[in-house]
Amino acid sequence: MQALSFYQQSIASHLASLQLQKEPTHLYQPIKYILDLGGKRLRPVLTLMAAEIFGATYTQALSAATAVEVFHNFSLVHDDIMDDAPLRRGNQTVHEKWDINTGILSGDAMLILAYQHFEDYEPIVFKELAKLFSKTALEVCEGQQYDVDFETRNNVTISEYLKMIEYKTAVLVGAALKMGAIVAQTSIENQELIYNFGLNLGIAFQLQDDYLDAFGDPETFGKQVGGDIIENKKTYLYLKALEFSNQEEKSQLLTLFTTKPTNIDDKVAVVKDIFIKTNAAMATQKAIEEYTFKAFKILEKLDISQEKKQILKAFGENLMNRKV
Amino acid sequence: MQALSFYQQSIASHLASLQLQKEPTHLYQPIKYILDLGGKRLRPVLTLMAAEIFGATYTQALSAATAVEVFHNFSLVHDDIMDDAPLRRGNQTVHEKWDINTGILSGDAMLILAYQHFEDYEPIVFKELAKLFSKTALEVCEGQQYDVDFETRNNVTISEYLKMIEYKTAVLVGAALKMGAIVAQTSIENQELIYNFGLNLGIAFQLQDDYLDAFGDPETFGKQVGGDIIENKKTYLYLKALEFSNQEEKSQLLTLFTTKPTNIDDKVAVVKDIFIKTNAAMATQKAIEEYTFKAFKILEKLDISQEKKQILKAFGENLMNRKV
Repeated sequence: MQALSFYQQSIASHLASLQLQKEPTHLYQPIKYILDLGGKRLRPVLTLMAAEIFGATYTQALSAATAVEVFHNFSLVHDDIMDDAPLRRGNQTVHEKWDINTGILSGDAMLILAYQHFEDYEPIVFKELAKLFSKTALEVCEGQQYDVDFETRNNVTISEYLKMIEYKTAVLVGAALKMGAIVAQTSIENQELIYNFGLNLGIAFQLQDDYLDAFGDPETFGKQVGGDIIENKKTYLYLKALEFSNQEEKSQLLTLFTTKPTNIDDKVAVVKDIFIKTNAAMATQKAIEEYTFKAFKILEKLDISQEKKQILKAFGENLMNRKV
Repeated sequence: MQALSFYQQSIASHLASLQLQKEPTHLYQPIKYILDLGGKRLRPVLTLMAAEIFGATYTQALSAATAVEVFHNFSLVHDDIMDDAPLRRGNQTVHEKWDINTGILSGDAMLILAYQHFEDYEPIVFKELAKLFSKTALEVCEGQQYDVDFETRNNVTISEYLKMIEYKTAVLVGAALKMGAIVAQTSIENQELIYNFGLNLGIAFQLQDDYLDAFGDPETFGKQVGGDIIENKKTYLYLKALEFSNQEEKSQLLTLFTTKPTNIDDKVAVVKDIFIKTNAAMATQKAIEEYTFKAFKILEKLDISQEKKQILKAFGENLMNRKV
């Protein structure tokens, strides 16, 4: 096993070695651009890590890890068009730097390129990886569609919300880990367990994202604190606040979430106050802990050494103790 | 072997049996909508036909054929967004009926669904099919990018144009046939030959599309005759006319292709006249014949019965004698 930074570095080198200076340049330049923007590369790191946990070498898993990262970036390019987002990792989004058509077509090419990375594996492993990948990719599309649908719905339930973040975010975390397990050809039981570890950790991760968006430290939080509140996003915090609020708080919240007032700071402060008063903030923290605990419980059942379980647990704890 | 209409009917039934009435409905309804619009289903028919030519049954090739048709419709959905097209097969395009975001996301899901249809094959065949599919799909993206690039370029060469239509249209015809050959597990030689047969026939087909767009019979041609001329599309006819024209014709053509005049009929008539006078029309017909002849020459080398070669040739002749 290697340190996280070693895996990150391996992914970065491998991505840099991809032959993307190809014709037609208008198709491949945006792909190189988005992949060069960086990011923490957490998903492909999980693939490498899982491969070594189950007895393969990280180099054997590099192609699968690359597929995961290329797919993740494909979804960012298309989601950024749909969300009309100007910035990604502090830089222009692809459709801003070029145009929407370029974003669509380069994104399509990335989805195909992701599949091609699996071709480095022999047929049986190739099929297992591609099958998991297709299932996951389709769920990510479904999650994105639910997210879009929820914007115009006023009756989203907690369980619908949890399903949305499971599909949009968590399944890819589970799949990234399971791909490492597939490359290592570990038992089906281990494959399912590591997937479910990732799934629960992914849900916890996304709930924490919701929480930090409102209650993160402005000093260390990368994005604008309160961004979700300003955008009227129906996060776990919001849905729990609606559930727990009295009549007055409820109507206040509903009113605030139908407007985009000029005084943003006031709105953020009032909403955060409701999140705390109604115990929605506490309920969110509790949910984060529960999903993290569930993930760690699953770890115990894995047929690997205690030492390796500890590595996965440390990774999870590290992820959940982040402030950004 | 079966009649063309039998294969078409089999594809239609198989497409109708796909489970697309799923949640989230906003993702799957547009997929069902575009697949229900019909069309001649020529590409999947080729897959079924090739499978039987090489000794498999058409039912064995239905999943691969479906993948080809779903992919083709994916490319139509995304291309229609990029071309800002309001109509497809006489009906609203997906992004017109819903919106651009729906078109992007439903298209993405279709590309993934196409891959999933290959999962019905055992690992070795699965890998061969998926690999050919990825290579082809990427080339189709590259062809679409070249097509977009050519709109704003004034120095497109004939060979660049031929490469563009090869990628955008012909490779999928070749791949559709080769997939049938892969399902039937025929020799690599036969697989390559049938691919090249399809590739050349596909180029001939697209050149004929260019020709009919200008010189088709308005009575039987489905689309508006002269559509490419009105849209200033740099087709084979146009590029050949530029090559063969004298100074006066050349400047007339260049001027006409930088404007969108109000009197469309005049423009179409003048341009068609130049296409004829310069012998560009004749050169296009000659190119169509050459690519068709090349395709038929390749057929001769196939290791199958004369009777089966005749079936493929009849299909090709039928395709090239169409008036629509």
